[in-house]
Amino acid sequence: MSDIVVTYQVISDKNDVSDLARKIAIEQSVETPESLITPEIESRFVGKVIEINRVENQIDKYTIELSYPEEILSQQYNQLVNLCFGNVSMYKNVKCVDINLPEELLSHFTGPRFGVDGIRERLGVYGRPLLATALKPRGYSDKQFADLAYEFALGGGDIIKDDQNLIGSFEEFKHRVTLCLNAVKKAEDKTGKRCVYFPFISAPYEHIEMYFEWVKRQGVQGVLLAPLILGLDTARGIAAKYDLIYMAHPSFTGSYCVAPNDGMSYHLLYGFLFRLAGVDISVFPNTGGRFQFGEQDCKKIADELRKPLLNIKSAFPCPAGGMQYAHLNEMCRWYQQDSVFLLGGSLLEHSEKLSESTQAFKAKIQEEFSEKITTPKEIKQISACEYSESEIGSILEYMKFEDFNWLGRESVKYKEANHTSFNSVRRVELVGKNREELAFDLRYFEVAQNGFSSREMHQHTHVIIVARGEGEVVVGDKKYAAKKNDVLYIKPMTTHQLRNVNSEPFGFYCIVDHDRDKPVIVG
Amino acid sequence: MSDIVVTYQVISDKNDVSDLARKIAIEQSVETPESLITPEIESRFVGKVIEINRVENQIDKYTIELSYPEEILSQQYNQLVNLCFGNVSMYKNVKCVDINLPEELLSHFTGPRFGVDGIRERLGVYGRPLLATALKPRGYSDKQFADLAYEFALGGGDIIKDDQNLIGSFEEFKHRVTLCLNAVKKAEDKTGKRCVYFPFISAPYEHIEMYFEWVKRQGVQGVLLAPLILGLDTARGIAAKYDLIYMAHPSFTGSYCVAPNDGMSYHLLYGFLFRLAGVDISVFPNTGGRFQFGEQDCKKIADELRKPLLNIKSAFPCPAGGMQYAHLNEMCRWYQQDSVFLLGGSLLEHSEKLSESTQAFKAKIQEEFSEKITTPKEIKQISACEYSESEIGSILEYMKFEDFNWLGRESVKYKEANHTSFNSVRRVELVGKNREELAFDLRYFEVAQNGFSSREMHQHTHVIIVARGEGEVVVGDKKYAAKKNDVLYIKPMTTHQLRNVNSEPFGFYCIVDHDRDKPVIVG
Repeated sequence: MSDIVVTYQVISDKNDVSDLARKIAIEQSVETPESLITPEIESRFVGKVIEINRVENQIDKYTIELSYPEEILSQQYNQLVNLCFGNVSMYKNVKCVDINLPEELLSHFTGPRFGVDGIRERLGVYGRPLLATALKPRGYSDKQFADLAYEFALGGGDIIKDDQNLIGSFEEFKHRVTLCLNAVKKAEDKTGKRCVYFPFISAPYEHIEMYFEWVKRQGVQGVLLAPLILGLDTARGIAAKYDLIYMAHPSFTGSYCVAPNDGMSYHLLYGFLFRLAGVDISVFPNTGGRFQFGEQDCKKIADELRKPLLNIKSAFPCPAGGMQYAHLNEMCRWYQQDSVFLLGGSLLEHSEKLSESTQAFKAKIQEEFSEKITTPKEIKQISACEYSESEIGSILEYMKFEDFNWLGRESVKYKEANHTSFNSVRRVELVGKNREELAFDLRYFEVAQNGFSSREMHQHTHVIIVARGEGEVVVGDKKYAAKKNDVLYIKPMTTHQLRNVNSEPFGFYCIVDHDRDKPVIVG
Repeated sequence: MSDIVVTYQVISDKNDVSDLARKIAIEQSVETPESLITPEIESRFVGKVIEINRVENQIDKYTIELSYPEEILSQQYNQLVNLCFGNVSMYKNVKCVDINLPEELLSHFTGPRFGVDGIRERLGVYGRPLLATALKPRGYSDKQFADLAYEFALGGGDIIKDDQNLIGSFEEFKHRVTLCLNAVKKAEDKTGKRCVYFPFISAPYEHIEMYFEWVKRQGVQGVLLAPLILGLDTARGIAAKYDLIYMAHPSFTGSYCVAPNDGMSYHLLYGFLFRLAGVDISVFPNTGGRFQFGEQDCKKIADELRKPLLNIKSAFPCPAGGMQYAHLNEMCRWYQQDSVFLLGGSLLEHSEKLSESTQAFKAKIQEEFSEKITTPKEIKQISACEYSESEIGSILEYMKFEDFNWLGRESVKYKEANHTSFNSVRRVELVGKNREELAFDLRYFEVAQNGFSSREMHQHTHVIIVARGEGEVVVGDKKYAAKKNDVLYIKPMTTHQLRNVNSEPFGFYCIVDHDRDKPVIVG
């Protein structure tokens, strides 16, 4: 099967249901009047109605199964949402109840970075559900929050997260996170058991990565994000970029699921779509708490997060919201081992000391499951510096210069194979290729006598500082004589080439954006 | 008034409604059991129930008016969404129907960048609704789309947007956009009338700014974005960053509004929240078309987008979806002058030639409104290079070196006022301060005999290349002798200082991220 299959549940008169099915199939794929649909467009793009079935014991309720060719998506998550439930979200009495992706397409979605196994490895906790709490209520001082975090970790809790209403300035955020991280560390040192703290990040687009950079540098292991507020793919992309465990808060999600005949099924949103968007732990309101999620709805969310799905990791279901001590055993049996139980208020109310409440709640869990504790996997702390993949050197603070070589940095011949376009050039990658935290790379290039660089163009810009010798720089239709310490800025998409015009090597520093497009060789 | 006032409509038994009101007030502000709410937390953070009223002619329907102190928001858009409709979105039978912000808080939201006036100025069209179309159907070749764009512009149309299902690779995107832009330009040259083309941008988080950078460089005036897919604040932030007109597509929005007793009112989402999030043109399904939006719902959206709102610009309502030629006069009267009518299929079906259909549709509009055409405001085209604000120089391709000065670049004394922390330093901003398209800035600093730089630290990193003289670089607890062509990388949040230890000036190039935090002076 190589089609995307989407199932909708509709309320419709028997005589109209096949028209409605066709209408949805067009709405979601080409959104065009019938008269403009050529046979080619029909076969390549328009959704196909596979099946229409009446829902058992219902007079006017039907399921409509549609299929779309997978090429329609370009493997983009945003487009998956758009295709399955973009415009049709505005139809009354049409509910999206199931999505099935072909394997080839699924293989392009990365899903959770850590998932159940990765998180267990970090915590060193196996064999039982995890115990989590939220720092609340807003209005407490950071010191009080840190005390709560300390007590919870001391009592053997596994995950602490901010409440999603703890909002303030960046300075306030840093203050709270620093205190809470230290408090958790202190408790870890005392108990020898790992506990992780997830700050809630919600900031304007302009500043949000600053928050991530900062928490990553502090050694934070994961974050709480509200995917429907940040944007599903935005939250996925940022969490992945910073290699953080991603716990999803359901704020602003409810309208997609609570109405009986509109929106989508609970398991599609909190299960399927979240998991595909990289959520490692999906928080949703537990049945019987303050919210009205049904028992079966919750079960289906949990199953969806953990079911085998090609190479996509399982994620943790995390029921939350008004859960009680008295129901913990029951919850254990209902949600099974690979779950996170998030308890806020009831844990705080349980006894005077949070560490004791935590122990009591954990004991309840241990009544149902025998825990296996192992030494947690050593965690990469502090900074992106420690990444080892794609290193070509290590981060150096000081690169001492010696005759146009730098200590600790290799000098390599460049693009030797292609003599016609690039001749007698060597290159030293000075800064930027070793996961230094920079938006740019600094390289040194040296062109030997009679040598020249490729004649090329690219979207990214070059900045050049001449370090030795003399050269000729051709930019578009202009030519510059370039001598020591001359600075050149080469605009986007401008053909350029550098030539040595002297007997001494022509050496220059070249600074480029770290993230950049590939050059195109011109002529 | 300095409180945020939010109104919910609920279905409830008369005896339970005040409990429900209190429950929502707590849920949205501190989400904590009553027992943990101290008097201080109560007064500073918990929502207050102002009024409860039964809805006229309804037995079990009430409106609940709650107020929240404005400090709770930290002026963040994301937090506004979270506060007004975060958790409560998961309550059944609770609908958010109104939001009123105090002026002080409103003044922190920028709203549309262009708005009605800014877009009219760009187009040079006054006095009548604007005519827009969508490039469809998917499956057409780029050449066919470009022909449509050309014909529409030739017929006097104002705005062309991509259909939101035109998804492919970046290369495919660039190809389509280039052809369509050129086609529109060709028509503009012929007619002398301005027309704008808005590509639809939907890409993974990792690549999305690459799309914006590219379209900006091509001279694109605006974009079509799906705010509920990208994230409301993400779409706002990116469109603002690239100074583009922001047309919002309602994909994935419907579930917030279509159910009668859940979600929120139409005007709150497509009007209030979109406008606050910077939307210049809000597309929504017109009443009577393929979707079931009510007549009054559409009217209220339009009113909300255009009503006076402190200093926040008016946005264009843009009814769309299955609109017919025959109803244009009626629509003109209904939506009034400051509207955009988006016609896709019906325009394409109207006649053989799109230019003629466009003329016909426009003539219909002109029956109702007398158009005023003025010379459109000259538009900044092509590149960010042409921005004039905060320039300290101009973009130079070639900065010729002369005795540690560079032609076209000023040399300035640096931080002179503060002699104790910074002494005898001059600075040359070489590249990056003039809106060059770079992720970094290149500066030259020179420290005179006995001089030194501030002892400071910051989140961003430095890269230094010594250009002349000899210095001492103190980094944390280490000291390096720095000579010509030595390269130093200074890690984030590391105290550092540079001192001249010689009689010759100590000069160095310093490269930093273009977007960076402010240094903190240490000791």
